[in-house]
Amino acid sequence: MDLHIDNILKDLQKDNFQAYLLTQFTNVEYISGYKPTSFAFCIIKENPVIYASGMDMELANRDSSIEVKEYESYDVMIKELKDEGINNLAIEPSLPFSTFVRFRDDFEIDAKTYIDKQRMIKTPLEIEKITKATEIAQNAFLQLDILNNQNNEKEVAFDLVRYMIENGASKESFDTIVTSGANSSLPHAIPEAKKLDQPILIDWGAIFEGYCSDNTRTMVYNEKQHEIWDIVAEAHDKSIKAIKPGIKCCDVDKVARDIIDEYGYGDNFIHSTGHSLGLDIHETPGFSPRDETIIEKGMVITVEPGIYLEGEFGVRLEDTISISKRGNVIGDLPLNIN
Amino acid sequence: MDLHIDNILKDLQKDNFQAYLLTQFTNVEYISGYKPTSFAFCIIKENPVIYASGMDMELANRDSSIEVKEYESYDVMIKELKDEGINNLAIEPSLPFSTFVRFRDDFEIDAKTYIDKQRMIKTPLEIEKITKATEIAQNAFLQLDILNNQNNEKEVAFDLVRYMIENGASKESFDTIVTSGANSSLPHAIPEAKKLDQPILIDWGAIFEGYCSDNTRTMVYNEKQHEIWDIVAEAHDKSIKAIKPGIKCCDVDKVARDIIDEYGYGDNFIHSTGHSLGLDIHETPGFSPRDETIIEKGMVITVEPGIYLEGEFGVRLEDTISISKRGNVIGDLPLNIN
Repeated sequence: MDLHIDNILKDLQKDNFQAYLLTQFTNVEYISGYKPTSFAFCIIKENPVIYASGMDMELANRDSSIEVKEYESYDVMIKELKDEGINNLAIEPSLPFSTFVRFRDDFEIDAKTYIDKQRMIKTPLEIEKITKATEIAQNAFLQLDILNNQNNEKEVAFDLVRYMIENGASKESFDTIVTSGANSSLPHAIPEAKKLDQPILIDWGAIFEGYCSDNTRTMVYNEKQHEIWDIVAEAHDKSIKAIKPGIKCCDVDKVARDIIDEYGYGDNFIHSTGHSLGLDIHETPGFSPRDETIIEKGMVITVEPGIYLEGEFGVRLEDTISISKRGNVIGDLPLNIN
Repeated sequence: MDLHIDNILKDLQKDNFQAYLLTQFTNVEYISGYKPTSFAFCIIKENPVIYASGMDMELANRDSSIEVKEYESYDVMIKELKDEGINNLAIEPSLPFSTFVRFRDDFEIDAKTYIDKQRMIKTPLEIEKITKATEIAQNAFLQLDILNNQNNEKEVAFDLVRYMIENGASKESFDTIVTSGANSSLPHAIPEAKKLDQPILIDWGAIFEGYCSDNTRTMVYNEKQHEIWDIVAEAHDKSIKAIKPGIKCCDVDKVARDIIDEYGYGDNFIHSTGHSLGLDIHETPGFSPRDETIIEKGMVITVEPGIYLEGEFGVRLEDTISISKRGNVIGDLPLNIN
């Protein structure tokens, strides 16, 4: 039996649950190697099974390491579970309400984060894939020759994705952000068909063998922009230095936030300091003010402080950190591109 | 007051609900014009409001037609609702269980499809945008010169996306499928770094001003492939001809399914005949065996029968149908590309 499944079975036993229902595509992929393209119900129990949609059966049979059955109906699926004596069910916190409703009359149900907790700690192979994704993405960024680039924002974003795919990525890990000038004060700006203005903020990542990368660089040009860049860089560097197993995630956020606050820009740092990544671009835990998760070896979490001046510009600097005895930056792209 | 909001207020009143909670990004966009990039809680009530995340405030204030407040915490949000005398809450069926849990102690809750029902019927402006998205995507397809194309599947997919963006799309409406040879029997195949084999199946779409398009063409080469193509084309054409207001969605599915069944390939048609689209690529209702929704003027639904022969190949043909007195194919790309 797979180690991941084994750990979940232990969690279930401890909490007196008989089975764990997973429907999130990356959770099913994590457990079985099969990533659904349509709905799927993965039930972790002594004899785990996936009910796959008809259109996914060929793929599921090819890729899944655990038994696959074709989904017929809720009634059939529920009857098969009841016949095995299953009366309670742990579910993912993300399960849609309408799916929960289909199960709640037949099972005692509660949300459990067993799978999130497993996925928090990456195996060496997972870290290798995230590292490869990061290298692909960073090499693509260098191919842009951004300081001499005459293209518009949309074209730059497009070239970046093309280079990543040519370098071996399956796709971008999220909608590539290439933004410049005043729009850079929107943390999730959408590239426009306008020539690059100043500063230039690029937030991008690749997917390699299912695993995501995530980086941000901001190229700045005048004195005010350099001043803000220096503050964000200080917050970036010092919060990375603070990372170590045993402290809380919120403590790392506090390091970044306090620095930005001291310079008087506390109200302009409008998001968390970082998030975990893996099969998904946003995973738990995160470096946020309220996340009290204890940092452990094997976690992979971004650090991405930013300062956003509405109507003027924004600066964000982001690296992905692999945690062993300390926090190690993945990849070797310089922070300062100017 | 906006017509969409007005209709929902009437639905709420009829069912004795005081407010409707929306968190799905495209639902918030549909109601307010603001598409969240982070979490948001949109509450439809006499005085509708959106609680937006701090990082989205600049965007929300810029784009939203309804009042925006900065989200502070569940406690603050719930207190403000309770202070207004709100004791019950309609929610989206898709609401995550963990969000439902945050509200269930303070409100009587049930899932309602008011918003889905509104979105089923497209306005003339929405149909215009879907039509423009379709034209952009179909023109891009023609630019591929697919019959003389020497690129590999990934490159073709990449070129198609580039042409769509150059033609005015903001992005692809879903992961572009370019598959060929035996892989074409996977309905949601992923493009590979291999030269185009035969047949070639391409399933693609653009987003224009938020609205999706969706088409599939299959280019076939030998007798067996032509035979299957002809059956799928017959199912495609006849099910489109059957579409009219007043009949049920499942009746259209039955037309396609019966034809494919008569030729002996019923077990190889492994998905529904079609789905609605709009701000999302998959909306309700769909042409599926169990969908008893009555077809109405203003619906926009795909027709995409397919036959999948595992280990051999697959054929799928898809157009998007705008429904008035009858079903009108959007765009003018020939079905037969050979």
